[in-house]
Amino acid sequence: MSSDGRRPPYFLGIDLGGTNIKCGVVDDSGTALTSIRIATEADRGPEFGIERLAEAAHMAVDAGNLGWDDVAAVGLGSPGTMDLSRGMLLEPSNLPGWDHFPLRDRLAERLGKRTFLQNDANAAALGEHWVGAGRQSTSLILFTLGTGIGCGIIHEGRIVDGRHSHGGECGHMIIQADDGRLCSCGRTGHLEAYASATSLVKRAAEALAEDDAPSLLRELAPEDLTSQAIDRAWREGDALASTLMRETARYLAVGAVSVMHTIDPDLILFGGGMIGSGRPFLDEIRSQIHSMTFAMLARAIRVEFAALGGDAGFIGAAGYARGALVGPH
Amino acid sequence: MSSDGRRPPYFLGIDLGGTNIKCGVVDDSGTALTSIRIATEADRGPEFGIERLAEAAHMAVDAGNLGWDDVAAVGLGSPGTMDLSRGMLLEPSNLPGWDHFPLRDRLAERLGKRTFLQNDANAAALGEHWVGAGRQSTSLILFTLGTGIGCGIIHEGRIVDGRHSHGGECGHMIIQADDGRLCSCGRTGHLEAYASATSLVKRAAEALAEDDAPSLLRELAPEDLTSQAIDRAWREGDALASTLMRETARYLAVGAVSVMHTIDPDLILFGGGMIGSGRPFLDEIRSQIHSMTFAMLARAIRVEFAALGGDAGFIGAAGYARGALVGPH
Repeated sequence: MSSDGRRPPYFLGIDLGGTNIKCGVVDDSGTALTSIRIATEADRGPEFGIERLAEAAHMAVDAGNLGWDDVAAVGLGSPGTMDLSRGMLLEPSNLPGWDHFPLRDRLAERLGKRTFLQNDANAAALGEHWVGAGRQSTSLILFTLGTGIGCGIIHEGRIVDGRHSHGGECGHMIIQADDGRLCSCGRTGHLEAYASATSLVKRAAEALAEDDAPSLLRELAPEDLTSQAIDRAWREGDALASTLMRETARYLAVGAVSVMHTIDPDLILFGGGMIGSGRPFLDEIRSQIHSMTFAMLARAIRVEFAALGGDAGFIGAAGYARGALVGPH
Repeated sequence: MSSDGRRPPYFLGIDLGGTNIKCGVVDDSGTALTSIRIATEADRGPEFGIERLAEAAHMAVDAGNLGWDDVAAVGLGSPGTMDLSRGMLLEPSNLPGWDHFPLRDRLAERLGKRTFLQNDANAAALGEHWVGAGRQSTSLILFTLGTGIGCGIIHEGRIVDGRHSHGGECGHMIIQADDGRLCSCGRTGHLEAYASATSLVKRAAEALAEDDAPSLLRELAPEDLTSQAIDRAWREGDALASTLMRETARYLAVGAVSVMHTIDPDLILFGGGMIGSGRPFLDEIRSQIHSMTFAMLARAIRVEFAALGGDAGFIGAAGYARGALVGPH
């Protein structure tokens, strides 16, 4: 440990999103020394994107009063389909125009640092495992609830990124084989089509159209019918909002139970905007999980909220680079 | 290699079932030197069971003209819920009266050999990975289709037995969240409730009761309405049988796709009695998988039948003992 409590070596973690780039310097114990955020401006394409990532990287290092030489390696979490072995993006829907871009090698070249690419949701799961809500666990799943449902799996301390860079895409598990809802990916019955924030709003609009029963949600302008508004109405005792939130919890429990019957982790984590709903929502998910799985497993599984919020991605990306250089934390 | 082509050390593999015990000596290259089968007589309880397992073990060694000292270790695959860390059965539904029995340690003591306990379906998956249809793969899932649906996962060469001895229980993944069929485990919507041989017969009986449309299946006495009979009627061009078999393939594909979106293996294997349906059934599963997953993944995934038949369990159990002693194959 250095005299100021920082533990070298330092790793630079970057969380590339369709809207923002989050970036920070993380020390060897997983403490984020700095954290900065700039707009991605993804529509300006990948060449601009590389410059933008480099800008964010240097800002994060400068903010920590560190020199560039202090950075041992760079970890980069990215959304979208990718080929991790080649460090390539494939067809990332949140980064239009970045198709088949050799993101890892181009960034490594630009930064002059060893750079490790990982799926953003997998990186977030690793972050939670390293220094977040999953510190005590050996194996965990993190569901990140937002527009879609991101997912990352840590099995025996390591990311399950799969044989085709497609591990932990649990938002696309099929939870309704017959008459399934349409998913954003174009297929049907996927978890994301039932339990994401977007799907919750869609189910709310459908329910409102179905009958004339009174509901706080009915008083909202269509553009104000958001997952936050539904959550608020639930807290205010609205019956329809309660049904919708409980259904959401049940669908999430279905996804969780299927993963419990596959990987059998010791911890299920939920993160992302929707966990703003707080403890009653978590308790509802827990109760639904308990009703759907074997008694022994229901007693043993821990179900919690994630702890790192929006920092999980860049911290986990840094942890991934660290793991590649020096081994598991 | 010894002069007769056998490669020591030798491992004894045992596949304990509710009806039969299968047992064989397996050499270091995964070749089964002997294979014997005796009735379990499970209803006579676990003390009798230990004697029965010992009898099978000695028969298998004698049949190979080997001495007991030639056996380096014993691997035992068992059905039912268990606590692998303690080597205990918990509440195995196929072994009534064996609840909370310390199977591993009692057998080790009786045989005087180091003994390693594993779930039978996990052992079968390891067997296929070692010397069966999964030899070339790094990660695979084996679905064994019978009365229920057994499942084992090999991830990066190792069994995923999970944090609560509950890994690879994919027969209990939830594939129908709303209005799901009742599973043998008492919960609803599980894969097994849709795609096991038992469930196929149940769906057939329901379809026959629904209308009077002509079908070869209608001519069968109720006790002759089996998965084999449905398969036979399908081959003979019966429309209802075709619908039922295609539905079964689709449900299996749903399970396969959810695992592909979780572990992302390179190989999905199907084994057990129902694969007697042969190539058209496999092709139907493949085609359904292709329609349900991402194009890149559909191109990359291999979907095959298992190769070891009923020997997978004891060979894999031997392989598990071998792995515990000398490391991965």
